Amino acid sequence: MAVGLVEPKELLPVKGIRLSAVTAGIKKSGNKDLVLFEIAEGSQSSAVFTKNLFCAAPVTVCKKHLAQKSPRFLMINSGNANAGTGKQGMQDALQCCELLAKETGKTAEEVLPFSTGVIGENLPINKFEKAIPEAVSSLDEDAWLDAGRGIMTTDTLLKGISKQIELDGQIVTITGVSKGAGMIRPNMATMLSFIATDAAVAKNLLDKTIQDVVRTSFNSITIDSDTSTNDACVLIATGQSGAAELKENTEQFQKFYGALKDVFQYLAQAIIRDGEGATKFVAIHVDGASNETDARQIAYTVAHSPLVKTALFASDPNWGRILAAVGRAGVDMDIDKIEIYLDDVCIVRDGGRAASYTEEQGQRVMSQEDITIKINLNAGDSSALIWTSDLSYDYVKINAEYRT
Amino acid sequence: MAVGLVEPKELLPVKGIRLSAVTAGIKKSGNKDLVLFEIAEGSQSSAVFTKNLFCAAPVTVCKKHLAQKSPRFLMINSGNANAGTGKQGMQDALQCCELLAKETGKTAEEVLPFSTGVIGENLPINKFEKAIPEAVSSLDEDAWLDAGRGIMTTDTLLKGISKQIELDGQIVTITGVSKGAGMIRPNMATMLSFIATDAAVAKNLLDKTIQDVVRTSFNSITIDSDTSTNDACVLIATGQSGAAELKENTEQFQKFYGALKDVFQYLAQAIIRDGEGATKFVAIHVDGASNETDARQIAYTVAHSPLVKTALFASDPNWGRILAAVGRAGVDMDIDKIEIYLDDVCIVRDGGRAASYTEEQGQRVMSQEDITIKINLNAGDSSALIWTSDLSYDYVKINAEYRT
Repeated sequence: MAVGLVEPKELLPVKGIRLSAVTAGIKKSGNKDLVLFEIAEGSQSSAVFTKNLFCAAPVTVCKKHLAQKSPRFLMINSGNANAGTGKQGMQDALQCCELLAKETGKTAEEVLPFSTGVIGENLPINKFEKAIPEAVSSLDEDAWLDAGRGIMTTDTLLKGISKQIELDGQIVTITGVSKGAGMIRPNMATMLSFIATDAAVAKNLLDKTIQDVVRTSFNSITIDSDTSTNDACVLIATGQSGAAELKENTEQFQKFYGALKDVFQYLAQAIIRDGEGATKFVAIHVDGASNETDARQIAYTVAHSPLVKTALFASDPNWGRILAAVGRAGVDMDIDKIEIYLDDVCIVRDGGRAASYTEEQGQRVMSQEDITIKINLNAGDSSALIWTSDLSYDYVKINAEYRT
Repeated sequence: MAVGLVEPKELLPVKGIRLSAVTAGIKKSGNKDLVLFEIAEGSQSSAVFTKNLFCAAPVTVCKKHLAQKSPRFLMINSGNANAGTGKQGMQDALQCCELLAKETGKTAEEVLPFSTGVIGENLPINKFEKAIPEAVSSLDEDAWLDAGRGIMTTDTLLKGISKQIELDGQIVTITGVSKGAGMIRPNMATMLSFIATDAAVAKNLLDKTIQDVVRTSFNSITIDSDTSTNDACVLIATGQSGAAELKENTEQFQKFYGALKDVFQYLAQAIIRDGEGATKFVAIHVDGASNETDARQIAYTVAHSPLVKTALFASDPNWGRILAAVGRAGVDMDIDKIEIYLDDVCIVRDGGRAASYTEEQGQRVMSQEDITIKINLNAGDSSALIWTSDLSYDYVKINAEYRT
């Protein structure tokens, strides 16, 4: 089903990171469902989390631990989100951290826990207890593919990428994995992503960097407008490449940031390409807005419109639905100035269908797997670019049958 | 498909209103597609329209004409929305008014035009020209059922209701029809509704009354969050019942308003019950909010969540999705205070799944056709009540195949 997405054949190790993935029996499928990231001493880690007020217990624990210590382990389980589980959920998340801490001689505060899967069931602690020793003993630098697979839930394909650049004559590696296929929208939606680099970046710069790069990647995608209780994205810099510490506003940092942005955008777009039931990959580009908030508001209104999404699924150039979605976005605009394009085909101009438009042109673009909807308000210099998918029978099927 | 909706067997005439419905050939199906309402002299009419900025040409013309004259005719065509048609669309809407004015000896400003159907195609004026004489010659007091059927597009059932009350020893009748099955959300979504009464109500009170009653009826429903370019609701008071003119803040007016509200809510809910692909009728009741804006925001976030809607379709008590939707509504709230109910079953309390909850209880409620989701924030006195439907295979099917 995935739209133009291919699984990576290899993912490059990052010096200072060891990983493992084992079967703890949390997933009913028997697939791997417990993943560890071991982070070398001296590394820096930054993270962003869901803004959903009903955030899951592990998210609360992560935030607390991050504020106390620099993490030495990420522990991710798939199959159970430990969300909507109240006080018991908090206790369980903490206990998992303690189990791993005990096994590795670290403190519980040095463990960040992540959970993804069904909401509202308690974590099976005994399964963690049994699986953690194997997970620890099998830690390996070259296990990114296993880790990427172990965090999957309704994903159909493993999502991961590696990129290398040269800094100070040293090879610097960035490798990341992500998961997520539904409940995806800005502000971290059922999505987990773990990215590590052996570049050296100070904590405060790393914090700023992840905020920046998430904005134009994970926080610019939406499948179904639903934000999850568990979303998290972690960026780790081990500093073991041998290259000098990166400083802001340098050419070296720009080079690094460019590569990092590529990795983040690839991982974010991979989630859309593997979106539940997705048959189209759609970029929505709003331009000429008077401010970025307006631009994003219009982009998301179009992206979330069920009528636009079903027209995309049908490859139907029903441009009237795009126009209607723009018109209800709640943004003040001069209708007569707006231009709307499907790729290079102008569909709306002068307050209605463009005179030059023909159904054949629209049909040609809508038949593609990758489509750009471009909306120019001609009212300012601000813009927004987000990515989404269509709404298909299979989206309904997957989400109507997920628990049964 | 419609959920608990039955077509009316009869609709009562309203003194001062004559109607007709003919086949002009605008719909490909050959069904009736041109409807007239003739309004007796001395009547008062009020209307509310879509807030979509890309509003259709007839909406613009309606607003202009209403500001100039008291309407003597409503002319509604189904099959073509005359939306996204730019300047040509404006000319066409005006020309239709002129054609009817000429045939009836009225002025064009005394005609309000309404269109519903496909966006972006020009109106076939010649078909209006041919059909208008027949439409005028067949005007009849007792043609509400025909009129209701003539305004239908993707509706599967005719939506209409009559109600009578006694005022001053006189029988006062309220009869209304509505259409709409998708692209439905607050602020008038592809929805047309025409309600007439023979009560006597002054223009300024009628204007106020329609605003009030629409808020808790047509502006409290949503199928898919999409607002149409053409929505309109018209309320006509002919004053021919014999009862005295209604004055605000009187017992008589309260009695009338109560009946009017019943009619409006029935017609609004009928649209949801006939929602595209709907298999459930869902009331979302938010209570204990600190203000009404917050309450409506939460209600709509739950109502628009594709994950909540697909769970409803599956009759799956996946309460975690409701909790997640509440949590992302963008409203400040104390998670530990929130209670969520499916009908009488408490699903969330103390920040997580209610201790008393069992899957069997949830399953029992979700298996029903009519379901109430009740969310109590326990933070104030404001509330909101809206109605919505589920998201089914058939919703996708209908909207992926609408034009083809």
